[in-house]
Amino acid sequence: MSLNYSKVKHMKTYDPLGIDPELVQKLVYDALVWSSLHGLLVGDRNVQRSGKIPGMGMVHAPVALLPMSFPEHYWRQACELAPIFSELIDRVSLDGKFLQDALFRTKKVDDSTSRLLDIHSKMLKINKEEEIRLGLHRSDYMLDEQTKLLLQIELNTISSSFAGLGCLVSELHRAVVMVVIQTEEHNMYDQHWLSSTLKDTYPFQFTHNVTTIRKTLAEIDAEGQLLPDGTLTVGGQTVAVVYFRAGYAPTDYPSESEWRSRLLMEQSSAVVPINCLPFSRHQEDSARAGEAKCASEVIVHLFLENKEDIAKLRKCFAGLWSLDDSNIINDAIERPQLYVMKPQRGGGNDIYGDDVRETLQRLKKEGTEEDAAYIHMQWIFPTVSPTFLMQDGICHQDRSISELGIYSAYLRNRENVIINEHSGYLMRTKVASSNEGGAAGFAVLDSIYLT
Amino acid sequence: MSLNYSKVKHMKTYDPLGIDPELVQKLVYDALVWSSLHGLLVGDRNVQRSGKIPGMGMVHAPVALLPMSFPEHYWRQACELAPIFSELIDRVSLDGKFLQDALFRTKKVDDSTSRLLDIHSKMLKINKEEEIRLGLHRSDYMLDEQTKLLLQIELNTISSSFAGLGCLVSELHRAVVMVVIQTEEHNMYDQHWLSSTLKDTYPFQFTHNVTTIRKTLAEIDAEGQLLPDGTLTVGGQTVAVVYFRAGYAPTDYPSESEWRSRLLMEQSSAVVPINCLPFSRHQEDSARAGEAKCASEVIVHLFLENKEDIAKLRKCFAGLWSLDDSNIINDAIERPQLYVMKPQRGGGNDIYGDDVRETLQRLKKEGTEEDAAYIHMQWIFPTVSPTFLMQDGICHQDRSISELGIYSAYLRNRENVIINEHSGYLMRTKVASSNEGGAAGFAVLDSIYLT
Repeated sequence: MSLNYSKVKHMKTYDPLGIDPELVQKLVYDALVWSSLHGLLVGDRNVQRSGKIPGMGMVHAPVALLPMSFPEHYWRQACELAPIFSELIDRVSLDGKFLQDALFRTKKVDDSTSRLLDIHSKMLKINKEEEIRLGLHRSDYMLDEQTKLLLQIELNTISSSFAGLGCLVSELHRAVVMVVIQTEEHNMYDQHWLSSTLKDTYPFQFTHNVTTIRKTLAEIDAEGQLLPDGTLTVGGQTVAVVYFRAGYAPTDYPSESEWRSRLLMEQSSAVVPINCLPFSRHQEDSARAGEAKCASEVIVHLFLENKEDIAKLRKCFAGLWSLDDSNIINDAIERPQLYVMKPQRGGGNDIYGDDVRETLQRLKKEGTEEDAAYIHMQWIFPTVSPTFLMQDGICHQDRSISELGIYSAYLRNRENVIINEHSGYLMRTKVASSNEGGAAGFAVLDSIYLT
Repeated sequence: MSLNYSKVKHMKTYDPLGIDPELVQKLVYDALVWSSLHGLLVGDRNVQRSGKIPGMGMVHAPVALLPMSFPEHYWRQACELAPIFSELIDRVSLDGKFLQDALFRTKKVDDSTSRLLDIHSKMLKINKEEEIRLGLHRSDYMLDEQTKLLLQIELNTISSSFAGLGCLVSELHRAVVMVVIQTEEHNMYDQHWLSSTLKDTYPFQFTHNVTTIRKTLAEIDAEGQLLPDGTLTVGGQTVAVVYFRAGYAPTDYPSESEWRSRLLMEQSSAVVPINCLPFSRHQEDSARAGEAKCASEVIVHLFLENKEDIAKLRKCFAGLWSLDDSNIINDAIERPQLYVMKPQRGGGNDIYGDDVRETLQRLKKEGTEEDAAYIHMQWIFPTVSPTFLMQDGICHQDRSISELGIYSAYLRNRENVIINEHSGYLMRTKVASSNEGGAAGFAVLDSIYLT
């Protein structure tokens, strides 16, 4: 075997896990085999066509060999938050005025936020408040060692747009689920697993018999049609549910075609799409900015009545602020090591330490609105654990942190909430940054557990 | 999609299957996804480390998109033959004198046959006739269009060597199955599926809990030990069953180490390994030579008593002769188009048409024993069907033939045959040669059905 066993063996002297290198070697091999046999794969970017054709140039997905412990208490807390967030998103997304106000400054410096707000306005004019609404979300958390709090990292609206929901409810077997995909998609195999599960009986004992189609935004623009009753058809097929695996990043909208496509999906059907912009992950950083700006304000604006619910949300928002708050800015200038500044636009690097102080002082002095382009976060110190990470067939030991994602499903009609519950979780292992913790500095090694 | 759909579309004018190109396109995509999610993979030789580490540089296994029909009548016939062959192999393998005589001329021109016969002699001296014997075989057939006969192509002794069978029977859960592997193995994923099935409950509802180890011949030589009671241990683990995925070809024995390893396995345990050389696929061509030479002779020598059984075997041996038979030689010189000559040693090409006549005339004239190096086969004309074949993500239509393999399991103790039955089948699609049929001319596209 040419696995990097020599490296594993060298770890013996400093391996805090104290695991026999021979056993690690066996774990490595078994994990690679398991991934190969069960579709835990990604396309290798070095292999031509691997992102366009399934079955070509595959490599195992990055995985962590050992699970990290995560206190059940916090997992329960995250589950409890799920229905509250779903309700909040439903309500916030219907308040166009609030959204426009909350994102007023961001809109001025961020073109894609501006376009999404425009789409949102158009949708609200259709007055869909009375209709059936459905939402699938995932809220991500980390456990902060300093405060011992479970802090929200971001809220992902996985499938915020629901076209033809009437058809979903009454005759889903005729309609299809549409996955919005990248032109080139190396991370396609988990998508196919989902499609396969929706379609097949194997390995499950029940049959959904739901068909999936896969379309890029440009293809949806070319093939999509909005029928008079609001039904969305793409390539002649009625679409019941749209699952966004592309369309989050501004780079996914290189031309007007993609924006038309987005508008078409959002406007489609008699069902109001739940598109709560501030909580959407259109871009990881702007999402956080949105959350930060909205988190407290949302509650101030009393979208929720239940005081217990409000207190629960506040708790997991700890340490998120926009640069509107002068108290926080002054504190960060004094104690920059406790903060991180994240630019809203992609491409820029996060700002740490003394650079936080300098940047804030410069922004303050200039008095421009450039500060709207940043979000300000408390430095999170998640629990760091040693683990073995596998990537490209090579095992290395590293310091890692865990990110917990809780899925939620929400469905209501005009009168009643029919479903509002947490519906599964995702625990991801990420490499801890060289900056000793912090929510910002993780390498993108999106490992998952083998359990 | 950049699949070769343009090519598929061009087929429309001459597609004898008359399948809508859009449907073919969908079949192509679904087949690629299915292969990816279910481990129907091989290592891509163009990707470094792909043959050494699982999970690296994978590509879907070549597959045929459509099944060819195969008459059930012939399938039943092949199943009926399975236990007769198993019994025959058991008996022939115990008759050292017959084997030495039958392969006397081959031995002189083929070093690896010679070495295997030597090993066989040593084994027989241990006098294991009275012991428990077990065999797993696969007999391959094609349906000949001219004669309407099911003809045997070859008989594979999949796992002919059984070490520590006492332990297999009484306490298999403590012992392991050892897979003999190539140093570099690109076709490893079906092996892992088997190991996974032996170990896991998933996706099956019962547990075998049998552990598999994987060793090259050289590793077995280095780590193997024969205990006084005949038990084989490799790396300290007791081996119950040896599954040969390497060791068939003379090239698998580059040094004395590999031969020592083979001898060790064959000699191990109190159980006589069922190693019936003439039926072993040590090398595809020599195997056929062995069969050819033995096929009729075996029966002449009356290894079987039952006349019905003898008649059944004879029927599927049609058209296999060694060059000992002067009548056949004379017929082939007159009608060379009905024959193919296959050299016993690798590297040579099969001989067709007028070359058959010329070669036979030369051999006759020279009067050397070089003719022992050839086997002489009736040209088989299997049913040719059009199909869609997938390789490296590209779909192409081709003319194909089917090869049916019937597995069989055989177990007996000193008094009784405990198991002797067919146990599954394998239907493979192969590309028909440009020479219009024939058992010899298939490209190595070892496709399997998706059903």
